[in-house]
Amino acid sequence: MIRVAVLGAGRIGQIHAANVAANPLAQLVAVVDPIDASARKLADKLGCEASTDAEATIARADVDAVVIGTPSDTHAYLMLLAARAGKAVLCEKPVDNDLAKADAAVAELKALGAKVMMAFNRRFDPSNIELRRAIDAGDIGEVRQVIISSRDPGLPPRDYVAHSGGIFRDMAIHDFDMARFLLGEEPVEVYAKASRVVDPALMEEFDDYDTLMVIMQTASGKQCHINCCREASYGYDQRFEILGAKGMLMNDNLRPSTVRRYNAQETEALPPLLNFFLQRYTDAYRNELDAFLKALDAGTAMPTSPWDGRQALRLAEAAIESVKTGRAVVV
Amino acid sequence: MIRVAVLGAGRIGQIHAANVAANPLAQLVAVVDPIDASARKLADKLGCEASTDAEATIARADVDAVVIGTPSDTHAYLMLLAARAGKAVLCEKPVDNDLAKADAAVAELKALGAKVMMAFNRRFDPSNIELRRAIDAGDIGEVRQVIISSRDPGLPPRDYVAHSGGIFRDMAIHDFDMARFLLGEEPVEVYAKASRVVDPALMEEFDDYDTLMVIMQTASGKQCHINCCREASYGYDQRFEILGAKGMLMNDNLRPSTVRRYNAQETEALPPLLNFFLQRYTDAYRNELDAFLKALDAGTAMPTSPWDGRQALRLAEAAIESVKTGRAVVV
Amino acid sequence: MIRVAVLGAGRIGQIHAANVAANPLAQLVAVVDPIDASARKLADKLGCEASTDAEATIARADVDAVVIGTPSDTHAYLMLLAARAGKAVLCEKPVDNDLAKADAAVAELKALGAKVMMAFNRRFDPSNIELRRAIDAGDIGEVRQVIISSRDPGLPPRDYVAHSGGIFRDMAIHDFDMARFLLGEEPVEVYAKASRVVDPALMEEFDDYDTLMVIMQTASGKQCHINCCREASYGYDQRFEILGAKGMLMNDNLRPSTVRRYNAQETEALPPLLNFFLQRYTDAYRNELDAFLKALDAGTAMPTSPWDGRQALRLAEAAIESVKTGRAVVV
Amino acid sequence: MIRVAVLGAGRIGQIHAANVAANPLAQLVAVVDPIDASARKLADKLGCEASTDAEATIARADVDAVVIGTPSDTHAYLMLLAARAGKAVLCEKPVDNDLAKADAAVAELKALGAKVMMAFNRRFDPSNIELRRAIDAGDIGEVRQVIISSRDPGLPPRDYVAHSGGIFRDMAIHDFDMARFLLGEEPVEVYAKASRVVDPALMEEFDDYDTLMVIMQTASGKQCHINCCREASYGYDQRFEILGAKGMLMNDNLRPSTVRRYNAQETEALPPLLNFFLQRYTDAYRNELDAFLKALDAGTAMPTSPWDGRQALRLAEAAIESVKTGRAVVV
Repeated sequence: MIRVAVLGAGRIGQIHAANVAANPLAQLVAVVDPIDASARKLADKLGCEASTDAEATIARADVDAVVIGTPSDTHAYLMLLAARAGKAVLCEKPVDNDLAKADAAVAELKALGAKVMMAFNRRFDPSNIELRRAIDAGDIGEVRQVIISSRDPGLPPRDYVAHSGGIFRDMAIHDFDMARFLLGEEPVEVYAKASRVVDPALMEEFDDYDTLMVIMQTASGKQCHINCCREASYGYDQRFEILGAKGMLMNDNLRPSTVRRYNAQETEALPPLLNFFLQRYTDAYRNELDAFLKALDAGTAMPTSPWDGRQALRLAEAAIESVKTGRAVVV
Repeated sequence: MIRVAVLGAGRIGQIHAANVAANPLAQLVAVVDPIDASARKLADKLGCEASTDAEATIARADVDAVVIGTPSDTHAYLMLLAARAGKAVLCEKPVDNDLAKADAAVAELKALGAKVMMAFNRRFDPSNIELRRAIDAGDIGEVRQVIISSRDPGLPPRDYVAHSGGIFRDMAIHDFDMARFLLGEEPVEVYAKASRVVDPALMEEFDDYDTLMVIMQTASGKQCHINCCREASYGYDQRFEILGAKGMLMNDNLRPSTVRRYNAQETEALPPLLNFFLQRYTDAYRNELDAFLKALDAGTAMPTSPWDGRQALRLAEAAIESVKTGRAVVV
Repeated sequence: MIRVAVLGAGRIGQIHAANVAANPLAQLVAVVDPIDASARKLADKLGCEASTDAEATIARADVDAVVIGTPSDTHAYLMLLAARAGKAVLCEKPVDNDLAKADAAVAELKALGAKVMMAFNRRFDPSNIELRRAIDAGDIGEVRQVIISSRDPGLPPRDYVAHSGGIFRDMAIHDFDMARFLLGEEPVEVYAKASRVVDPALMEEFDDYDTLMVIMQTASGKQCHINCCREASYGYDQRFEILGAKGMLMNDNLRPSTVRRYNAQETEALPPLLNFFLQRYTDAYRNELDAFLKALDAGTAMPTSPWDGRQALRLAEAAIESVKTGRAVVV
Repeated sequence: MIRVAVLGAGRIGQIHAANVAANPLAQLVAVVDPIDASARKLADKLGCEASTDAEATIARADVDAVVIGTPSDTHAYLMLLAARAGKAVLCEKPVDNDLAKADAAVAELKALGAKVMMAFNRRFDPSNIELRRAIDAGDIGEVRQVIISSRDPGLPPRDYVAHSGGIFRDMAIHDFDMARFLLGEEPVEVYAKASRVVDPALMEEFDDYDTLMVIMQTASGKQCHINCCREASYGYDQRFEILGAKGMLMNDNLRPSTVRRYNAQETEALPPLLNFFLQRYTDAYRNELDAFLKALDAGTAMPTSPWDGRQALRLAEAAIESVKTGRAVVV
């Protein structure tokens, strides 16, 4: 049994803690949150200890691994702390919102030979796993173009926007990771264009954007397009399309039921999409944790690495630079 | 060039006449209707002669073939008249609404060696052609069950109901023909149950039904279900499903566009179905006439025969008897 | 906390036991199976007691409710035992394979005022819940026709066929229940036709069938068609279609992923369906247990009753009689 | 009756000539092609005159309108010739492959007050008409993002590549026009990235590309992405997706039948797409000609103008410049 502490008792920490508690390979030792009541409430529900002290919990001899679901600016610090203590880590993205700090952390984690996995949950969605499997199996031949459509159901609250690091680092970073996952090659050039059409005033206030489009290309000429919008009236929209030399693959979204409605106004109407990532990626979060624990258990390589986290951030930074300069940025 | 006269200038006669006029193998000689103005209007539009005299038109030396789109009770008479005059015939269903008269007509047509094709238009729909082709190609192995859903967009007018011969002979007869077409074997037993739920008063007045279900079975154990309703709010619904030992085939309906709508209430919503048979089976009517003309031109067998018309009527009669007796009827 | 014992450690008992263990309203006290090793294995995995003695377990003071997943011929006996002891019961279908015994059990359970729920899992599938909700909300107006397609992925083993009670009592009984659930009225007449096309020799040996079609009608004229086949090459096929006066509803099946494949042979191809009921109805089993526990907890009526179990069996019996006589059977 | 001459008897000229011959508003007077045999063959089939002399045909007193389906470098010349002679014109894109010449032609056509329509056939596809209608009706609120996927079934022949003017002017120009049609605003900035992954050697030889991605933005912040590839194994792929403030619209492609295949390998598999534009846009070409004739008949404005042709070309030129410079180009 791998003994696990979960750092952070917010919405993402709650998901991870419940998955740890239910996973046959793991034992949930403690949940940690600076707000005592939050830690306690979650711990009581899942039958483990509660703490407000991340450092002490990481140091516990009966903790083999930590899952980090704390605010972004603590990720690098906590990962390093855990890694230096010889603990395995599953950490939410990003490594850090600052590329230089992220680079430093990645370098030290590598030097330590630490077992660290970045929590890019979408890679573990059953349909996305199948996309990668089908590409690897040669079902569509050489990949030529990847199109990623990624839309949130609605604008985040003002406070969230203020501290998110911006749409590229906060939202599109998942899509940059999926681009790398599906292309199977590193993009070498990034062009991005961003827009304020959902809530121009809010976006201007924080020098942020609510709508964007990206084009990337790899050295061999593979192309990738990403489009993001902070608002989609019909739910959380997450689609991937891969055009290859011999075929094409597309995934579809999930809905609460498969019931189709026919009447005088319409036919084949399905319900709106599952509202947001916690519902949409329920299986993905479970699979992600499972992959982490299985890799630990088997002593194999982590499925994703801090380097993956760094690369996604690097692409986000390049996109931001491209928006500012109107030029494609070489990465 | 095959010289053709079209008998009947109603909605079905108009379709046939326009298709004859546009078909490169045919020349439209005349259209005939007892209402002079109807015949004239259609003839003027298509650039041919108009007549009110079916007998005389059939007898014309410059008429090689006739297309019969007149009321049901004239079909047998006109087919025989044409066949005796050595003319080829494409005739709308049914042979006759009376089985004994239909049998007599079929026997004489056979004895005459007449070139007569029954206009079962659905057999010539591109998707239905593909269903039959895939079955013949062995794509789904031995056929086990056929499910036919067949719904009109709305009740016909009172007058139509009064003279239709009833839902089994008028509407379900197409489905009985499709059952034979898709099963590839003759049903040997028919059970039917009919209901009055759309307009009970109207149906009781004419001892007719607006809703029905049928089960048929062939000697080898293949089964077929038909469901019909005179009203479907979402358009003219025509679906076929064939379960075989190795796979399953389904067709879908047609719509005026392929645009799918997503919003806060729904996703993937398509427009209502094409409203009725004239829109739905535009290609089928054209293909049907083309198959008739090509068979004439090539001297090959008619794609469908009066016997097919008789068999569909026989199944309709058996279904009516089953409704009355509550028993399966052996045919 | 409702203290629960699960009787039967076979595939269905395992599902129920795991759901009890994970449900926040319940505590799994014991699992019971005549095969000691089976009971032990399951108990160890879920952290509860194991027993081979159903009677003693039912009698335990610390057992509030039992879930019965034992062979069919023990259902009535165990339900009555539990009910007499004042325990709540969630029991797999059927009440009994013999209608007279089922009637007697239903009568006694009613007299005892027992809290007994029949485990018709399909009623608790998210899409089927939505079908019922939409009908109740008047989305499609008055129901006119229900079409149920229900196909197993493959023939059960010879031993299972020998003791199943036949395709009508074993397989179609779920569809008879769904017919009642979706019609919202009792069928008053049943016609059925059965066939042997998947494995004629095996079916003849046990006087059973592998393929069937049913038509039922209610007093007000609503109709229902059921088609079943013991084999569908493409997976476990479970579809419901409800035609109403104002619209139509259809559900679709589930698949392991939503990835669609495009290539020179095909477009929009999805993977085969989830293989069988344990995968297909994972959520339904969980929802079903939850509905049982919530009704117990709130003191409200059981969502389904032994009478529902009896009625489904009655329709199955009527269907069998109809197959033998070739006549519709009044129920 | 509008008397029409069709210039060009190639594959596009044949389509236009057949549509003119079948349209009740028009009379086909002549077809013109420098290759006498081509002109004669088409003229004989459609029952009109044949000529090798475009100038003389345009000058005929009994010609009211010309349809131009000749090579690109003759478009401007023939349009001007016809316009100066007071004839109405329906002309295939582009105005000219050279922007300066196109501008000069557009200016003179405007000064002449000529009735000239550019043949952007996709605007007249039933589904694309519905997209525009739904946007105009406010169904999805303000447009935010447009995504256009446009893929040919296979590389054109070497000769075609040599004279096509390149993928941007030849293929993507249709997509640039659709972008303007769907955005409802002029793009003010264009970024494009092109690649050689289908046939690198051939593309290098002609300094052309087989794969491209574009991002455009309007002054109000609306965005548009275009992706093109010269090869798609599954057929001619033409999809449009429009995200608005209140909803989203997508069209789908067309196939030869609606039959879906289910078996042990797949479910819901449809046939490959219609192969190329002549099949895919059959209705669109007919609607386009009809719109031209109706506007002439009613004396209303042409549905599309030389200016539309000029603007699409301008965007293509900007895209080419962007590929060369790696920068977004302001237009």
